[in-house]
Amino acid sequence: MILFPVPIGCEDLCRSLPGWNLQQLEGCRHFIVEEIRTARRFLRHAGYRHPLDEDFFYLLNEHTASSWRSGTGTADFESWIARIGDGEDVGVLSEAGLPCVADPGALAVKWAHEHNVEVVPLVGPSSLMLALMASGLDGQNFVFNGYLPVDAAQRAKRIHELERRMRSEHQTQLFIEAPYRNNQLLDALCSLLQSETRLCVACDLTLPSQLIRTLPAGRWKSERSKTDLHKRNTVFLFGE
Amino acid sequence: MILFPVPIGCEDLCRSLPGWNLQQLEGCRHFIVEEIRTARRFLRHAGYRHPLDEDFFYLLNEHTASSWRSGTGTADFESWIARIGDGEDVGVLSEAGLPCVADPGALAVKWAHEHNVEVVPLVGPSSLMLALMASGLDGQNFVFNGYLPVDAAQRAKRIHELERRMRSEHQTQLFIEAPYRNNQLLDALCSLLQSETRLCVACDLTLPSQLIRTLPAGRWKSERSKTDLHKRNTVFLFGE
Repeated sequence: MILFPVPIGCEDLCRSLPGWNLQQLEGCRHFIVEEIRTARRFLRHAGYRHPLDEDFFYLLNEHTASSWRSGTGTADFESWIARIGDGEDVGVLSEAGLPCVADPGALAVKWAHEHNVEVVPLVGPSSLMLALMASGLDGQNFVFNGYLPVDAAQRAKRIHELERRMRSEHQTQLFIEAPYRNNQLLDALCSLLQSETRLCVACDLTLPSQLIRTLPAGRWKSERSKTDLHKRNTVFLFGE
Repeated sequence: MILFPVPIGCEDLCRSLPGWNLQQLEGCRHFIVEEIRTARRFLRHAGYRHPLDEDFFYLLNEHTASSWRSGTGTADFESWIARIGDGEDVGVLSEAGLPCVADPGALAVKWAHEHNVEVVPLVGPSSLMLALMASGLDGQNFVFNGYLPVDAAQRAKRIHELERRMRSEHQTQLFIEAPYRNNQLLDALCSLLQSETRLCVACDLTLPSQLIRTLPAGRWKSERSKTDLHKRNTVFLFGE
């Protein structure tokens, strides 16, 4: 089972994928994907030469993942994977970034370990790691918290909790938001964080519009109006 | 300031770096590095064509990092960086993996943000992310804890703390160990973790000797004797 990262956007693939990944794709006829249409688009863009109509795609997304996880939909996956010949490679394609990181692909890898199938992860773009590298915040101890609560009061409570943990455990905090709520989250962070806490916004990573900015939260207040994050893929980080 | 990942080992670079990274190297004459000898070795291996004797290397390692951090050695760095012409690129080279992730390079990036210098992180191999992808453990919420305490009693206490947090916060726990103590740490994890906790050992990532295995801690006990981690670069992970 080979885990293929997929770049965000359509820039030249040599910017974000090793050439080796594209060679490995050529050997795969069976793919576990989150959405078939975007998977086919990536394969064409990557110069994959095998006719896509002869390939096999297994859909693993929120819907199939939950039935698989609850045990009710296992038969479908088991019967599909049983049809794959011994020694044939199965590719797991992410929708964007690394498969299995904030993505349902982890269930396929869990299955592989339970059935003693070798798992091969390939190098590729991770918005979380690009953001962490470029933030100037401490990369010795960090946590990815996924999404914060949507409710404003609960979100404020959570931000305060994470800031306490940042100080008591010297731990850099990473999280993401639904892209249409990014500006509201930045406003909330500006008003809730202590003014000396360093806040990084890392936006459109690997794209020409890439923006990476780290400032003390107190200084973000004046920069806030110049920065529009609406509907842009953004990683938020704060640290000491 | 361009952040260049450096692969572990000497395998073919096309396996772990985008071709774009090697093109970007060509434009750099100034490098911030952890050790000059290994940086020069990487540059030669990467086919860098400029004569290395004409390049400038600034050492940023544990020793210079601590003097820099404490403010006593700032002048050296400031005077070096002041000599770099406007618009000239400065590369930050990691010793292995991603710069600034478990690496002192973050101080250089912090300086860049404070002086409004653009930071460009490049895609490359991260043993932490390759291990997380390939572990089959939850990648929606995870923490990298760095090293555990060396003292056995304190280490046991810390492992129990992390396991509690894993369950209460559904958080996958990642950590590393000095390579010559890996086997002892695996023994400790086998005996301390609850038997159903899934433990992943990810070893020699991207090398031909790569080993990635996830089993419930209770089952690791019987596999333990077949697995020698001594002096092999290893990421340890556990999760639900």
